[in-house]
Amino acid sequence: MIRNIDVALQLVLEPHAQVPWLIQEAVRGGVTCVQWRDKFFNDNDFYNRAVEIKSICYELKVPLIINDRVDIALAIGAAGVHLGQKDLPFEVARGILPASMSIGWTVENFEELEEAEKYDVEYIGISPVLLTSTKLDAAPPFGIEGLQRARKMSRHKLVAIGGMTPENASAVRAAGADGLAVVSAICRSQNPYETAKAFLK
Amino acid sequence: MIRNIDVALQLVLEPHAQVPWLIQEAVRGGVTCVQWRDKFFNDNDFYNRAVEIKSICYELKVPLIINDRVDIALAIGAAGVHLGQKDLPFEVARGILPASMSIGWTVENFEELEEAEKYDVEYIGISPVLLTSTKLDAAPPFGIEGLQRARKMSRHKLVAIGGMTPENASAVRAAGADGLAVVSAICRSQNPYETAKAFLK
Repeated sequence: MIRNIDVALQLVLEPHAQVPWLIQEAVRGGVTCVQWRDKFFNDNDFYNRAVEIKSICYELKVPLIINDRVDIALAIGAAGVHLGQKDLPFEVARGILPASMSIGWTVENFEELEEAEKYDVEYIGISPVLLTSTKLDAAPPFGIEGLQRARKMSRHKLVAIGGMTPENASAVRAAGADGLAVVSAICRSQNPYETAKAFLK
Repeated sequence: MIRNIDVALQLVLEPHAQVPWLIQEAVRGGVTCVQWRDKFFNDNDFYNRAVEIKSICYELKVPLIINDRVDIALAIGAAGVHLGQKDLPFEVARGILPASMSIGWTVENFEELEEAEKYDVEYIGISPVLLTSTKLDAAPPFGIEGLQRARKMSRHKLVAIGGMTPENASAVRAAGADGLAVVSAICRSQNPYETAKAFLK
């Protein structure tokens, strides 16, 4: 398989993130991949912004994953897409993406995790692991014990999403997460370099 | 070229259109292609609904065009997509679609029409030709004279969009439109069969 994204620390950009500065600092601090999501712009703006972010990531040698939109990911040649239950069905998305492009897949409960064991995913996003302020319609948290149970159930790389901070990062990893996806803790940090670094200590 | 969509009378479905009834009646009355647009549902619902509409159109042997979303069009194997200035740039969309899939392209003024002469489009949507109640952010209308001018400028098939009624259809055709795209006049008709027929008289 060509696809192999280092998911140890995924930076999920907020819509108005200050790029390139934020990405440069966060990657210098240890971020291993970037996810871009946009729910506000029209497609033309989304595309142009994605091209800009792709070129920053390319320069820094970190893969860029596009949230939700398979066509935007195809258009810019992203490393992959991140999808969930409300997006295109997994097998349909897999069918229109080239083999070189990955799919990260969010699950919000154990039934969805079990279903996802059938899929050829790059990683599973366990969402949310802890309480999150970023996603208002988030499902009830898995908690650390839920994450341990997910680890036992799954053959996939697991990425913990929701409520990740430098303080809880090692407990989350110890519970079986291969990586963490971080939104606000890095995007809203005054010093994203130090914050990213703190996540990997 | 494989692509060749009969654009004489395009039915643009409203989000809550009553299918399959509306499509069946409208096609029986003479509708030659169907466009499905959705701005409200999540992608999973959009996809499932598109699959349903595709199978109705397939049964009736009329091509289905998906508005805006290149990935949904790819996912269901639509006949094409309909895009405009706020969507993926034309050449980018063309690059990720197979040669068998068409692109209809909306222009809202003569500068955009001139630009679109470079594109390998299936048809150009001239929008709006007349005053429309369906699209709240529509540009100023081209009018019948504007449509005549567009006809002289363009090598493409022209589809008139906006304010189309059975009463003005022949004047719009006489001004140079190869086809008409109709939203409310058919979607909100008590008798879509008769209304479609009236558009082609």
